Amino acid sequence: MPTLDRQESVFVLDLGAGENRFHPDWIASVDEALDQVEKADGHRALVTVATGKFYSNGLDLDWLLAHADRHQEYVVSVHALFARLLSLPVPTVAALQGHTFAAGGMFSLAHDVRVMRADRGFWCLPEADINIPFSPAMSALIQSRLTPQVAHEAMTTARRYGGHDALGAAIVDRAVDEDAVRATAVELAAAQAARAGATLGTIKARMYAPVLALLRDTADPLG
Amino acid sequence: MPTLDRQESVFVLDLGAGENRFHPDWIASVDEALDQVEKADGHRALVTVATGKFYSNGLDLDWLLAHADRHQEYVVSVHALFARLLSLPVPTVAALQGHTFAAGGMFSLAHDVRVMRADRGFWCLPEADINIPFSPAMSALIQSRLTPQVAHEAMTTARRYGGHDALGAAIVDRAVDEDAVRATAVELAAAQAARAGATLGTIKARMYAPVLALLRDTADPLG
Amino acid sequence: MPTLDRQESVFVLDLGAGENRFHPDWIASVDEALDQVEKADGHRALVTVATGKFYSNGLDLDWLLAHADRHQEYVVSVHALFARLLSLPVPTVAALQGHTFAAGGMFSLAHDVRVMRADRGFWCLPEADINIPFSPAMSALIQSRLTPQVAHEAMTTARRYGGHDALGAAIVDRAVDEDAVRATAVELAAAQAARAGATLGTIKARMYAPVLALLRDTADPLG
Repeated sequence: MPTLDRQESVFVLDLGAGENRFHPDWIASVDEALDQVEKADGHRALVTVATGKFYSNGLDLDWLLAHADRHQEYVVSVHALFARLLSLPVPTVAALQGHTFAAGGMFSLAHDVRVMRADRGFWCLPEADINIPFSPAMSALIQSRLTPQVAHEAMTTARRYGGHDALGAAIVDRAVDEDAVRATAVELAAAQAARAGATLGTIKARMYAPVLALLRDTADPLG
Repeated sequence: MPTLDRQESVFVLDLGAGENRFHPDWIASVDEALDQVEKADGHRALVTVATGKFYSNGLDLDWLLAHADRHQEYVVSVHALFARLLSLPVPTVAALQGHTFAAGGMFSLAHDVRVMRADRGFWCLPEADINIPFSPAMSALIQSRLTPQVAHEAMTTARRYGGHDALGAAIVDRAVDEDAVRATAVELAAAQAARAGATLGTIKARMYAPVLALLRDTADPLG
Repeated sequence: MPTLDRQESVFVLDLGAGENRFHPDWIASVDEALDQVEKADGHRALVTVATGKFYSNGLDLDWLLAHADRHQEYVVSVHALFARLLSLPVPTVAALQGHTFAAGGMFSLAHDVRVMRADRGFWCLPEADINIPFSPAMSALIQSRLTPQVAHEAMTTARRYGGHDALGAAIVDRAVDEDAVRATAVELAAAQAARAGATLGTIKARMYAPVLALLRDTADPLG
């Protein structure tokens, strides 16, 4: 389960040591961590990272299969998490130390900045291959952060981007050696920590207002 | 007139050996070809290409001049063709072996991928020079596939992009030797053929929902 | 105060020799210059430039502090200026010979093209640091001209882009030596002067229709 640690101005949220799929308990735990970060005072920033081979593999399909009747409620909760992160009044950096797939990729796009391991691991939206189309809100989130050409390729071909490819496509902002992923993310976060506050929150909320409206549409989250 | 051929999983639609302008009969013929591709079963993809100096020179202005009373109906049919191609539940690759101008350029942008001849031929939106402003729907289509800087330059300056320039501007995805244009397009299409199906169609329809709504607005197609 | 000069087909508007902040009189003067450019006949284009260290430092915060009761009316007038420039039926080039900050940066983005001095001077949106969030209309303007990654960094980190950085980020279209800034802008403008006219105006108005609607929303300009 996710654990929150603080190093001076930078909160580091470790998403877990497994596949870090979005189980309802995992979502609740991340949400609680965001509460702590948001409610803290003063200069602060958030780094998310994980332990091991995966950053996150996305939706918890096993749980979803066992709880088909809660599908809509589940999607609403995932959308809400994305919306909250996308408009968090605190600088956010995703440290992609391992595979970042599907909703894990979207979660990474809801951060201000992404740092990816250069030599191993993939960033990938496999939805076209697993017959799970993006919800309209997820589609809007992805398209709001990538250029048209990159969003189209990522969303329609399930391409697996290694670190250098993801950097070239501007999916991530940095591609660095394995042992520098976390440190680079913490450094970038610390450099922005003074900007935490209501103004930053308003700037993000206005930039992504149409995306946030879709992510927060609880009536028809599946389009 | 357009002719449809099949090479294993890849349908190849030759748009013709002339300027391949959008005469109503040409539009009907392309539309019928898309019917065949869409209704076919299993793995499949579509390559469009043409024979000779032109991929397509766009709207049939001679026909339009002779049928001014059918202007609105004509624009509706062009918009509908763009909408259909943009959301086709089949991977699509445009092989731009020759000049690709005006509505021909927009038609190319409605494909998933574009391969362009590197050494000769231009991709160009000459509308600013010929006093035909883009319809709001055409404008939305172009802007949905290009970066802001490139869309602005292409739409306001009538710049003629050669293959290398078009690649640099991410208007096309590949720029290759003349004799490799068609083969490269077929190869890229074949590599995606397994992704044909309803999920791909839904992904594209949701990505371009605002553009498709404008393209399908039959009440006021000229804005 | 701004002064308008004409060199053959190119109008050159010098924004002033100070910080060139948006005092109401300055706005009225620029607006009057745009009247002259718009009403002139034939081939023409507009270059804006300034004299000295600053292109423009943006909103006149001193005036605003002294006239807090006119805040909304003031923002409406700034939005209107952006809207007018963004849809001007004349090619426009900003020659950024000096610092271009905040609303000065937005003003530059409302031009068709930007030429920046390469060796000194910054393009910067410092709003995140001075606790003035972008209005929704300003946010839409900036996001309509920059890629998602660049807009996000520029708007949330107050990064100061030098000429080469701004060129690499596609914030500007050229970065040249100090003594070439104005001449390059005039040359680019002259090359587009033949495109002045109603078609160009319609093309721009349709491209930026959603942005223009926000910029012209006088009821709730502050969101």
